[in-house]
Amino acid sequence: MPDAPPEPPYLAQGCVTPYPRSELLRQRLWSLVQATLFRFSLPRAHAFRARLLRLFGADIPEPAKVVIFASARVFFPWKLRLEPRSMVGREVNLYNLGPVTLRRGANLSQGVHLCAGSHDIARWSMPLVTAPIVIGENAWLAAEVFVGPGVTIGELAVIGARSVVMRDQPARMVCAGNPCRPLRPRPEPT
Amino acid sequence: MPDAPPEPPYLAQGCVTPYPRSELLRQRLWSLVQATLFRFSLPRAHAFRARLLRLFGADIPEPAKVVIFASARVFFPWKLRLEPRSMVGREVNLYNLGPVTLRRGANLSQGVHLCAGSHDIARWSMPLVTAPIVIGENAWLAAEVFVGPGVTIGELAVIGARSVVMRDQPARMVCAGNPCRPLRPRPEPT
Amino acid sequence: MPDAPPEPPYLAQGCVTPYPRSELLRQRLWSLVQATLFRFSLPRAHAFRARLLRLFGADIPEPAKVVIFASARVFFPWKLRLEPRSMVGREVNLYNLGPVTLRRGANLSQGVHLCAGSHDIARWSMPLVTAPIVIGENAWLAAEVFVGPGVTIGELAVIGARSVVMRDQPARMVCAGNPCRPLRPRPEPT
Repeated sequence: MPDAPPEPPYLAQGCVTPYPRSELLRQRLWSLVQATLFRFSLPRAHAFRARLLRLFGADIPEPAKVVIFASARVFFPWKLRLEPRSMVGREVNLYNLGPVTLRRGANLSQGVHLCAGSHDIARWSMPLVTAPIVIGENAWLAAEVFVGPGVTIGELAVIGARSVVMRDQPARMVCAGNPCRPLRPRPEPT
Repeated sequence: MPDAPPEPPYLAQGCVTPYPRSELLRQRLWSLVQATLFRFSLPRAHAFRARLLRLFGADIPEPAKVVIFASARVFFPWKLRLEPRSMVGREVNLYNLGPVTLRRGANLSQGVHLCAGSHDIARWSMPLVTAPIVIGENAWLAAEVFVGPGVTIGELAVIGARSVVMRDQPARMVCAGNPCRPLRPRPEPT
Repeated sequence: MPDAPPEPPYLAQGCVTPYPRSELLRQRLWSLVQATLFRFSLPRAHAFRARLLRLFGADIPEPAKVVIFASARVFFPWKLRLEPRSMVGREVNLYNLGPVTLRRGANLSQGVHLCAGSHDIARWSMPLVTAPIVIGENAWLAAEVFVGPGVTIGELAVIGARSVVMRDQPARMVCAGNPCRPLRPRPEPT
């Protein structure tokens, strides 16, 4: 039998998961916990959900006092830091392939998607590229905001609903749009 | 033991639900009904789903003749008005913290999100602010449109897929974008 | 009893499904399979999921070597063509009321939505209008991109996260935004 002709290159060719098998297994186990104990916990059982996340390695320093809705999803708990008084709303998707940090009092409304991974488009293998996302102290991301990898959002910033944030946003500004841009100052609350 | 130092202010500090306990309980009960009887009703059982909503206080005047897909979600049925011949498509999210009205023949395609609540960013406690959403007679919102609180969409308007609507949109115009803007007239259908 | 006054026209009046009953039944059956066997198959069982799709009429030529995540959804498998080495990511929504084709090595990231149907707004009955979507060879659509009916995306194009694509996008360009526009060349990968 003659050799098959060589296959021409294709996108994601030879792309392999950068995660060791043990980490993937741990992720599967967490997914299971998330889809059951976490998902069907009582609405106000925020402390319980924080404890589950911490059990899987999340960095949630005491006094935690975080709010995490039962329908929120976290990909890698061990790459998540939630500072006190931060809030993760309904159906938030923390796709934290890289590290994600919510500073003190940072607030994510329903359906926010933090995506800390992308791919290197210069290579056929499109290797995974991750970069940290940091949501600043007392910043508020309104409904269904999308944040890409490597983005830092400043202290007390407000990001309008459905904004697409691919670059850093400054502190104390109201920002919105696709792509998200600073629009006007956000005065210190009273 | 000395007193702990006072905690500095943080976003949503002292934020309390504006809803009485009885309303929250009713909402939980509705969620349960929605996740079971409503969700798993037969595809064409639109009248049945309208009856369930009405049982929980929705204002759906006779002759209802509304179409409501089983995968649509309503937060507070008692803050929803569906006029005859209106349509709520697949996986629509009526997050009606404030009143939501669909006028006669108004039409929501799959994945539309009507969000009738926001927060007052001038206050640390970020109190909930709600404002009514009204979708005008025979207006059509295409797939995955997002509508913010206080927005009225005019009669026979067409809103393009994935638009983000934070202001009123005029009647008989095709509108689209983030933010959504009127683009061209929409002639009366024949 | 006097006749009721005639009802004034309303949007989607007399709108009927263009699909024969047998096709709708087949779709229901597929939905059931998708929600069970497909959805709960093992993460790496891509070949199994391709077989299920093919069983329902999908055009997946050998050697398939496609990647299809278990949380992806397809509306009409018999209107789907997946060429070898194409990839359908997590929670992708292939709402293929019209034909959808992924060329060799085309790549859809999590939450992409290909919507191959719309409605004719010139008519009260808003008849369904479908048009093919073609994702070019080795093109990559990043997270949560939306693509409307009739769109062709060129070979090796990159479409940025959350873009809304209502027109054709050229080959070998990085494109993004709402509406999506070409931004800069995308060199051939190495």
